[in-house]
Amino acid sequence: MIVLRQLIGDVLRSQRMRQGRTLRQVSADARVSLGYISEVERGQKEASSELLAAICSALEVPLSSILREVSDRMVEQERPGPSDVASVPRAPIPEVVAAA
Amino acid sequence: MIVLRQLIGDVLRSQRMRQGRTLRQVSADARVSLGYISEVERGQKEASSELLAAICSALEVPLSSILREVSDRMVEQERPGPSDVASVPRAPIPEVVAAA
Repeated sequence: MIVLRQLIGDVLRSQRMRQGRTLRQVSADARVSLGYISEVERGQKEASSELLAAICSALEVPLSSILREVSDRMVEQERPGPSDVASVPRAPIPEVVAAA
Repeated sequence: MIVLRQLIGDVLRSQRMRQGRTLRQVSADARVSLGYISEVERGQKEASSELLAAICSALEVPLSSILREVSDRMVEQERPGPSDVASVPRAPIPEVVAAA
C-alpha cells in the first residue's frame, strides 16, 4: 500500500538534498523542531498543513509543486505491481549471452 | 494563507458530489466515521494517510488524482493576491455610467 506521508517525506528530503541543506538548517528556518522534521522526512509522522507550509516556505518551494511531485510519484506506484498481476504471465528475464 | 487540509476537503467533497453520493454512503464504504469524514471535508481535521487512502478507495478515485487536483487549485491560490501586491497600484474601478 502506498502511504502518502512516506511519499511526502521522500519528496521533501529530495528537495532539501538538492539544495545541499541540512535538516538542522531547514528546521531553524521553518521554526519546526529537528525531531519533528526528521520524522516527517522519514514518513513516520503526518505533517499538519501548517507544518508542511512552514517547511515549504523554509525550502522556498511552493507547496503546490511538492504536491505535484508527490502526485507524480504516486502515479508510478499506483501502476499494478507483481502482486496485482499475479495471473498475468510475466516476460521471462532474458539470459545473458556470453560473447563468443 | 492557503491551508492544505481545506483544499483537500474541498476536492474530496467536489468528487463525492460529482458522484451524487452522500457523506453517509462514503462513510460506510470507507469504514470511516461520518463525523470524521465530515470534518475532513470541511477542512477542520487533518486526514491521516490511511484515512485519505480509505476515502479515495471508497470514491474509486486514485489518491494521486486527488492530489493533482489539490495541487492545481493551490497553484491558483498561490498567485499574488491584493494583499501581496499592496505597493502595486490597482486599476480604478470604473464608475457605472447611467444610460442617458
